[in-house]
Amino acid sequence: MLWKCPYCGFEADASSTYIWRCPRCGNPLQVVYDVSCVITESRVVWERYRGFLPFTPEKWRGEGLTPLVREKLDGHDLLFKLEYLNPGGSFKDRGTALAIAYAHRLGFKRAVVDTSGNTGISVALYSKLYGLEATIIMPTTAPTGKKRAVVRLGAKLVEAASRPGATELVERYLGEPGTYYVGHLWNPLYIVGHATIAYEVYEDHGVPDYVVVPIGSGGLLLAIAYGFELLRKCGLVEKMPRFIGVQGYSCQPAYRALYGREELGEDSTLADGILVANAPRAREVAEKVKSLGGDIVLVGNTEIKRAHEELWNMGFMVEPTSAAAYAAYEKIKGKIPPNSKILIPLTGSGLKTL
Amino acid sequence: MLWKCPYCGFEADASSTYIWRCPRCGNPLQVVYDVSCVITESRVVWERYRGFLPFTPEKWRGEGLTPLVREKLDGHDLLFKLEYLNPGGSFKDRGTALAIAYAHRLGFKRAVVDTSGNTGISVALYSKLYGLEATIIMPTTAPTGKKRAVVRLGAKLVEAASRPGATELVERYLGEPGTYYVGHLWNPLYIVGHATIAYEVYEDHGVPDYVVVPIGSGGLLLAIAYGFELLRKCGLVEKMPRFIGVQGYSCQPAYRALYGREELGEDSTLADGILVANAPRAREVAEKVKSLGGDIVLVGNTEIKRAHEELWNMGFMVEPTSAAAYAAYEKIKGKIPPNSKILIPLTGSGLKTL
Repeated sequence: MLWKCPYCGFEADASSTYIWRCPRCGNPLQVVYDVSCVITESRVVWERYRGFLPFTPEKWRGEGLTPLVREKLDGHDLLFKLEYLNPGGSFKDRGTALAIAYAHRLGFKRAVVDTSGNTGISVALYSKLYGLEATIIMPTTAPTGKKRAVVRLGAKLVEAASRPGATELVERYLGEPGTYYVGHLWNPLYIVGHATIAYEVYEDHGVPDYVVVPIGSGGLLLAIAYGFELLRKCGLVEKMPRFIGVQGYSCQPAYRALYGREELGEDSTLADGILVANAPRAREVAEKVKSLGGDIVLVGNTEIKRAHEELWNMGFMVEPTSAAAYAAYEKIKGKIPPNSKILIPLTGSGLKTL
Repeated sequence: MLWKCPYCGFEADASSTYIWRCPRCGNPLQVVYDVSCVITESRVVWERYRGFLPFTPEKWRGEGLTPLVREKLDGHDLLFKLEYLNPGGSFKDRGTALAIAYAHRLGFKRAVVDTSGNTGISVALYSKLYGLEATIIMPTTAPTGKKRAVVRLGAKLVEAASRPGATELVERYLGEPGTYYVGHLWNPLYIVGHATIAYEVYEDHGVPDYVVVPIGSGGLLLAIAYGFELLRKCGLVEKMPRFIGVQGYSCQPAYRALYGREELGEDSTLADGILVANAPRAREVAEKVKSLGGDIVLVGNTEIKRAHEELWNMGFMVEPTSAAAYAAYEKIKGKIPPNSKILIPLTGSGLKTL
């Protein structure tokens, strides 16, 4: 298990040392490990896909193996992946379960994270489970339900004026020895954790033609791509899906990285979970989308609101951010060939924001 | 598929006519149908266990096949069944998915239900899915989050002064032709739907020695017992678990049916979901518990509150009602033999009540 920088070639042993970004060039790292390509019959996600993971977390709280609901709509075969039914209410639990298990293995005593909300619940949950003290730094504008959940899970909640303000505050907490910076925008364990979504989709329905996925940090898109790439390397699948990344007009770092410019459009503040201005993997996301023949689509509040209502009408009780991907699908569905199989992860629970 | 009254022997064809209680003696009915004993490999609960069900619902929203988390605690092998990760946030989705699919098959246009909350969300969700108009009658004291969820799912919310008041209001809505009384306290489809919990537990970990389960209407206890009985009839398992039913001191119909008296104790108002004074199956529950060598345990607010905190500390984000079962386990664990395998369903999500 190695940390590896794809930009400058830096490498370090990951089994004993945690490094959250490349100490040489400052870029996000990858984690490299042996893959066995074996899928087991376990109903615990970490056991089932242990052959695809750098290590197996000791504890499990029901994350992963979420339902995949298939709906024929508009001549397409839509695959909704119900990530909002993860135990902390979002897909983030997959990455966090791995990231905090790792911190525990290395003997860290405290975890700190800056987040728009869902990662905070998730980090609070798994920190409690492994006995780490958690400090969650969230913007004051985060939904009250998310703040309450963090506090009830025994974490220390710190409120910052904004999402970038939360990132700035992190450094104050990193000085104390034994403190683990979860750094989900950077930490490659989030990518290998979230990648389990791809293995599950593969087992349930094979490789989709398209994946329509919201881009906050871009970790989810990179993870699903990584998962299908591993399956291909293992010879289990032949083709790769195309990725349609989704951002809001209010915050377009990946779109800018892809097209070299931004688009004017309506605010997208309803999708607070994908307003990540400083997304360290934006360039990586743009390159991945390009290399796999995909695109990035922008949406605004009116489209998000309508998509959110439609999802509830279909019985998917998700939060507004989760509707951004479906809004993008609605916007571009006319251009997608008939009978295409389209994966749409529904990322976060609407119960937290009632 | 027949409706059958175990008390007076009344029978009627269930494939064409809905009857929510025995028209001859007024008691709750059973549904009787052919069982094939076949379990498939599907990851859709209704397909996987279709051999154990009276019919297969047309639609699915991710209900069932919930995680089973195993924890060694106090010398016992605890099996927590994460029912709060059902799509509507509680185990009720299993029964409702079947009950509303049935109403749709029979051509009903409207559904009405009296509920303390969770069944309301569930009925609103599946009614929307099948295109039925839903009217949900809840006490004003139900948590705001639950009321909001019902409204956002497009149902009509009617508030009654109390839980019994909600039941009294039902009749006003039943006059209009094409209206289906969901009646989850009576409707035996809830029992065969919830029974899927037993099939899942059997597949994951065999037969537990004990099942500790909250009793509101008692439907969950009867369902899990029914499920293991079917597995035994099929020759898939040999023994039956003992059932420890849990009620709060504030509302003890099943305890009274078992012991012929009530116990004095602290209020149990925190567990609002099991305050069902008019539980039509209370006698049936008491008889089932007795015949399987189990018991009914009473708990109060202090015990519920402590158990609720402990569950959150273990990473189980449940609502207070769900903590009643764990509170009962804590109360009686000293009397349970070491190494016993104990199933505790965690019934409802705490995200709705943040």
